[in-house]
Amino acid sequence: MELAHRETVESQGVEAVLLDVGDGHIELLAPLGPDTPVGKFIAKKGPGIHHVAYAVEDIDAALEQAKAAGLQLIDEEPRTGIRRSRVAFIHPASTGSVLTEIVQPANEAH
Amino acid sequence: MELAHRETVESQGVEAVLLDVGDGHIELLAPLGPDTPVGKFIAKKGPGIHHVAYAVEDIDAALEQAKAAGLQLIDEEPRTGIRRSRVAFIHPASTGSVLTEIVQPANEAH
Repeated sequence: MELAHRETVESQGVEAVLLDVGDGHIELLAPLGPDTPVGKFIAKKGPGIHHVAYAVEDIDAALEQAKAAGLQLIDEEPRTGIRRSRVAFIHPASTGSVLTEIVQPANEAH
Repeated sequence: MELAHRETVESQGVEAVLLDVGDGHIELLAPLGPDTPVGKFIAKKGPGIHHVAYAVEDIDAALEQAKAAGLQLIDEEPRTGIRRSRVAFIHPASTGSVLTEIVQPANEAH
């Protein structure tokens, strides 16, 4: 698997590494400290699979659809993810306990 | 996501549904009973993400590589997966607690 990207996101308290797999990615996440979302996840559950992310073309429309379908949103509005993408998380309580992210890549990342 | 395949695998005690995502799949798994690998997983950890699978062209070579790299194999020899694929699992103790499957699709499934 080829290294596609590496980025430290201070606001999320995480270092992210993207590896190419087909037309998707495996994203490796390392917490910047114990008091971060990923740090707390690891303290509670141990290392493992953190979430699944789906690329969408229009994250605003996707969030509206998710809301209309009754899904519990962690992010009512998109925030900035790695590579200047727009991202939002859906609560695992709505998705079979699978923390789910939707991602609208920045145009230049297509 | 489009339904790509549905199959009940009695020997694994599981019903599997494949959904197309890009050039990969999301595989939904439902146990046929509590005393099956997936049934036990759910009893222990609850529903969630079960494993990650990577397609390979030559599973025998991939297993040799994994073994040479010191990974702990659940399956020393490939067995038959859905769509007559050849599959083998690598123990999560070797892979950051991520149960990992390698899959060599049957030729007609390419």
